[in-house]
Amino acid sequence: MIRVFICGGSGYTGCELLRILSNHPHVIVTGVTSEKSAGRSVVELFPNLHPYANLIYEPLQVEKILDKADVFFMALPHAQSQDAVHSAFSQGKKVIDLSADYRLKDIKVYQEWYRVPHRYKTTLKKAAYGLPEIYRKRIAEARLVANPGCYPTGAILGLYPALKNKLIDTNTIIIDSASGVSGAGRTSDIRFSHCEANEGFRAYAVANHRHTPEIEQELSLIAKKDIKVTFTPHLAPLDRGILTTIYARLKKDIGTEKILDVYKGLYAGEMFTRVLNRGMFPDVKNVRGTNLCEIGLTVNKRTKTLIVVTAIDNLAKGASGQAVQNMNIMMEFDEMTALDLVALHP
Amino acid sequence: MIRVFICGGSGYTGCELLRILSNHPHVIVTGVTSEKSAGRSVVELFPNLHPYANLIYEPLQVEKILDKADVFFMALPHAQSQDAVHSAFSQGKKVIDLSADYRLKDIKVYQEWYRVPHRYKTTLKKAAYGLPEIYRKRIAEARLVANPGCYPTGAILGLYPALKNKLIDTNTIIIDSASGVSGAGRTSDIRFSHCEANEGFRAYAVANHRHTPEIEQELSLIAKKDIKVTFTPHLAPLDRGILTTIYARLKKDIGTEKILDVYKGLYAGEMFTRVLNRGMFPDVKNVRGTNLCEIGLTVNKRTKTLIVVTAIDNLAKGASGQAVQNMNIMMEFDEMTALDLVALHP
Amino acid sequence: MIRVFICGGSGYTGCELLRILSNHPHVIVTGVTSEKSAGRSVVELFPNLHPYANLIYEPLQVEKILDKADVFFMALPHAQSQDAVHSAFSQGKKVIDLSADYRLKDIKVYQEWYRVPHRYKTTLKKAAYGLPEIYRKRIAEARLVANPGCYPTGAILGLYPALKNKLIDTNTIIIDSASGVSGAGRTSDIRFSHCEANEGFRAYAVANHRHTPEIEQELSLIAKKDIKVTFTPHLAPLDRGILTTIYARLKKDIGTEKILDVYKGLYAGEMFTRVLNRGMFPDVKNVRGTNLCEIGLTVNKRTKTLIVVTAIDNLAKGASGQAVQNMNIMMEFDEMTALDLVALHP
Amino acid sequence: MIRVFICGGSGYTGCELLRILSNHPHVIVTGVTSEKSAGRSVVELFPNLHPYANLIYEPLQVEKILDKADVFFMALPHAQSQDAVHSAFSQGKKVIDLSADYRLKDIKVYQEWYRVPHRYKTTLKKAAYGLPEIYRKRIAEARLVANPGCYPTGAILGLYPALKNKLIDTNTIIIDSASGVSGAGRTSDIRFSHCEANEGFRAYAVANHRHTPEIEQELSLIAKKDIKVTFTPHLAPLDRGILTTIYARLKKDIGTEKILDVYKGLYAGEMFTRVLNRGMFPDVKNVRGTNLCEIGLTVNKRTKTLIVVTAIDNLAKGASGQAVQNMNIMMEFDEMTALDLVALHP
Repeated sequence: MIRVFICGGSGYTGCELLRILSNHPHVIVTGVTSEKSAGRSVVELFPNLHPYANLIYEPLQVEKILDKADVFFMALPHAQSQDAVHSAFSQGKKVIDLSADYRLKDIKVYQEWYRVPHRYKTTLKKAAYGLPEIYRKRIAEARLVANPGCYPTGAILGLYPALKNKLIDTNTIIIDSASGVSGAGRTSDIRFSHCEANEGFRAYAVANHRHTPEIEQELSLIAKKDIKVTFTPHLAPLDRGILTTIYARLKKDIGTEKILDVYKGLYAGEMFTRVLNRGMFPDVKNVRGTNLCEIGLTVNKRTKTLIVVTAIDNLAKGASGQAVQNMNIMMEFDEMTALDLVALHP
Repeated sequence: MIRVFICGGSGYTGCELLRILSNHPHVIVTGVTSEKSAGRSVVELFPNLHPYANLIYEPLQVEKILDKADVFFMALPHAQSQDAVHSAFSQGKKVIDLSADYRLKDIKVYQEWYRVPHRYKTTLKKAAYGLPEIYRKRIAEARLVANPGCYPTGAILGLYPALKNKLIDTNTIIIDSASGVSGAGRTSDIRFSHCEANEGFRAYAVANHRHTPEIEQELSLIAKKDIKVTFTPHLAPLDRGILTTIYARLKKDIGTEKILDVYKGLYAGEMFTRVLNRGMFPDVKNVRGTNLCEIGLTVNKRTKTLIVVTAIDNLAKGASGQAVQNMNIMMEFDEMTALDLVALHP
Repeated sequence: MIRVFICGGSGYTGCELLRILSNHPHVIVTGVTSEKSAGRSVVELFPNLHPYANLIYEPLQVEKILDKADVFFMALPHAQSQDAVHSAFSQGKKVIDLSADYRLKDIKVYQEWYRVPHRYKTTLKKAAYGLPEIYRKRIAEARLVANPGCYPTGAILGLYPALKNKLIDTNTIIIDSASGVSGAGRTSDIRFSHCEANEGFRAYAVANHRHTPEIEQELSLIAKKDIKVTFTPHLAPLDRGILTTIYARLKKDIGTEKILDVYKGLYAGEMFTRVLNRGMFPDVKNVRGTNLCEIGLTVNKRTKTLIVVTAIDNLAKGASGQAVQNMNIMMEFDEMTALDLVALHP
Repeated sequence: MIRVFICGGSGYTGCELLRILSNHPHVIVTGVTSEKSAGRSVVELFPNLHPYANLIYEPLQVEKILDKADVFFMALPHAQSQDAVHSAFSQGKKVIDLSADYRLKDIKVYQEWYRVPHRYKTTLKKAAYGLPEIYRKRIAEARLVANPGCYPTGAILGLYPALKNKLIDTNTIIIDSASGVSGAGRTSDIRFSHCEANEGFRAYAVANHRHTPEIEQELSLIAKKDIKVTFTPHLAPLDRGILTTIYARLKKDIGTEKILDVYKGLYAGEMFTRVLNRGMFPDVKNVRGTNLCEIGLTVNKRTKTLIVVTAIDNLAKGASGQAVQNMNIMMEFDEMTALDLVALHP
């Protein structure tokens, strides 16, 4: 039994962490913080979380909480996570950071896109990028894991086999995503009110979304060359889910079946990526509440373009599910523990 | 490890049974039938059910399947369930029938409301009504359980303490329910297409819904007198959930707190009914995918009326979750097994 | 051509007023106020309102605006509307108030339910209750119209013929309503965010909603006796629409057909109430964006209960559509002007 | 007053035609056909269409209907439209065909993509492609107009100024669209049931959607060179609307402002295309029920890619609204007649 503490537990990723961990046989949650909701019970904010009837939000006081746990999940806003991560890490704790603060290895890039300074260059160097399908070994050895962003998870998993096998022209990558509204977090921003989001569909942060450099960093590492991508997120009127449709020009004439073989080969043995058979494409509905990434693909022969479609749950594989997966790896638990989930249908 | 077989597994209750059972440590599903989808794999119809990658629908041939399992779930349409239940039951099997065929104890009432004859009067007498909060002991002793309808589950659990304690005038009961679209089943009926149901809200089967006699039978048994109710179901634009708002005139002057005490007292120790604190009312969103029934209530002093609101997931506590709960009781498993579920939020 | 001014135009009722008036051949909108959005253009808040490309929100300064128009729509929050209405009215203007401030004729009742004092007793006495199906003549003669609440509109129109013809026991009236989220207004309250409202259904303000005394006032006037009702509103996951299901015990044995005749008779000649044929019940989807109130009904013979179901669009017949209808009557325009609308389907 | 007849009026485009025409001062609808619903009233299928209380579906018998109208709208499935169009056209009628049958000028391409022969090569040559923003003059002179497909409308209007001004590399065009469920028509196909579509988002017809050759035909005509595109449609959980996100590599270094000028210049004077200001992007919610096409764009400098986003209502500008626009042009009515519509919000 390990003790787990969650910093920033009043948002949807915190809620999802608690939901998944409620079913984890080796974990006890010893505390959860929230500045705004300090003193209120978790169940008051999230009536679904009835197993945590006695858990009360506390304010984040780093010095007071370090003794309380072995593993810390940081579900804080970016910039606010820097200190908390550094403090826990430097005290020897294992830390999984769900913010963007320790994902970008180049501090200049971080500061350019997030418009805040980064104060912990040395700690940053210790962070493993928490995408197990690529970095499982490093995650197992790390004490600090930077949990990937939701869009990067769907985009990178969709491009990894194609890039690794040099199938595509790296100058032609287009990534078009649609996300459910929970991607905006638990927010009272009127743009995400039911009346404004329901029956709507719109692009946002066109050509300037902050997940762009994270996607580019990882694709560049896979391809061993500098890659720039065009990335457009959209807001879809659903609670959860990210569908990512990826386009890239093929470098040579190769058919759908062969590329499917490449994808199935590289992901063989992976428990959370599922490459669908020819002609099948994923639906975010099929992965809701699960840690799965489903992948479908085809070649458009007329334009020599590879089209890959991936579906994840932005709060699960795109955030808290992957965070638990990373914890399982770091703690040498079975990687599926608490993540052997089946989506509701309908 | 017990062997379980599902007759009628291509509808949403079948899908939900498989979802819940996938997480049951003492159960192996040995087969599932579907006339229309015989030969197809379960995953083809329900991509969410990936743990059943090798399960193929077979046609329902009673003589062939009886050896395959110890427990049979019948998720067949009413009338079609009669034979299958009788055959399995008379061969010594344990049977949980999710259809309406063995719920109504009075064959005349069944025939009047369902417009088909009932051929198995003797078997019918052996059936226990599968609402554990009232009939747990009988269910434990039964080999045939008639799993309650979705609307009756929400209505009866909302009225049970009030009736048992003779708080209300039994001539004044109004039951007003709203159900998600999955209550109509997995159907291609155009009335339940997205374009017709989305952004709509409507009453249906006003004054003549078939769950009425089932509700009346059970309320009458609780009150030990003949009760007639006014019941109106509505179709709400959501996947799952039934919210039931119940009205009844109070027999004497009694306050909200005292009635809450009565409810909390009677349901103390129950694992799936949750009586909310004063001023709180349930939301179907909080019970999605779970076997919970949440209950809130208040007294309208100005009209001396008790208002009780209950929320269930029509596919879970309203069908397949309750069916697994009944199986757990019949097989002497811990009643929570595979049902210790937390709703997604959002 | 008359000049119209809207006080409080940055909410959904203001938006809906502008939408409807954009199609009104005898009206020019000369200004619209908003405290929070003063200086911003209407189209910035509501991109759908492209015909108002040059209309800019201004702060509400009563003395400055009185010369600008002949008719004033007040779409302000309750309590805030009192002054503005009184000022415009006492300067000889015609005023249609969409707030609750001039609906309740008994100041004590207003103060009890709204918890604010009412300062304009004399002006209040001049107000006509703006439900044309009952008070058309008074509205035509009035200079101040209190536009009905959304729930009261659906409830009163559903009960008017039954009460007027003394068909029901006035002690047994239950009113159960479900409203789309726009009923909460254009709000950043997290309870109405997409993630919290979507896929949910819940009761709220159980036994204490502020529309209760308004409903009771009008039903009592129709029945010429004091009536108390039990009223429960629910929040449904849709943009617009209120479905109201009304229950009342019949005083004598009377069939569905005869009651339908009574309803069709009383509403004959009405352009916005549509009594549906036997067996038909309304759907809020069919009245979206229109000024219609659709009514279906049946008798539950087994419980001698009349069940009436009404559907309106809460922003149209339940607010701004009815406000324009009242203006048409006050100004002696054809009552259908700008309201001859057909719902989108789907 | 002209007489209008609709062949195929029981689908959503037929319903939308009737809705729009109900507000057209110069049109009387003299009949509407449906094979499946012959003998039923329009209002029975579409309760929103109350102005057509007396209109009854009749079977399609070409010889009987030709005398009934001056203008024929054909809202039939592809292949079935060929005969009806030819018959009406050859009898001197004006015809607007909403099917795909007369859109593709190359019969081989039609036969390859639609897998049926085309029997009326001569008639086909007479058809004008009904996109008024490009072909207004031809439409005015034509007696047969092939009304564009929904996806092509959004795609072509988004690319027209860029292609006409040779801003983009025509080998790099990616078109990514999301459509509401009404795009699938009024269908009982279970894939479009509420339970299957709600809370889902998926790609379909990847690399083989039949609107591809139509898009390519029109883009090639604009660019005066052969263009192939990669086009991926998605199904979004909303009633109406198509959002199209278009990507193309810029041929030279040019900024967002200059391209916006090009777009605003070319569409100046157009009443139904609205180019949004810099930083603004369209939402399908803002154009629901209207004939508008809203366009936003930006340059991604890092990848030298132009990103254009367009929003239309698939049933309005994407089908029936544009059909009425074409009729207005053909009949020399004001082009805005019956189309001066403002979207509901919310």
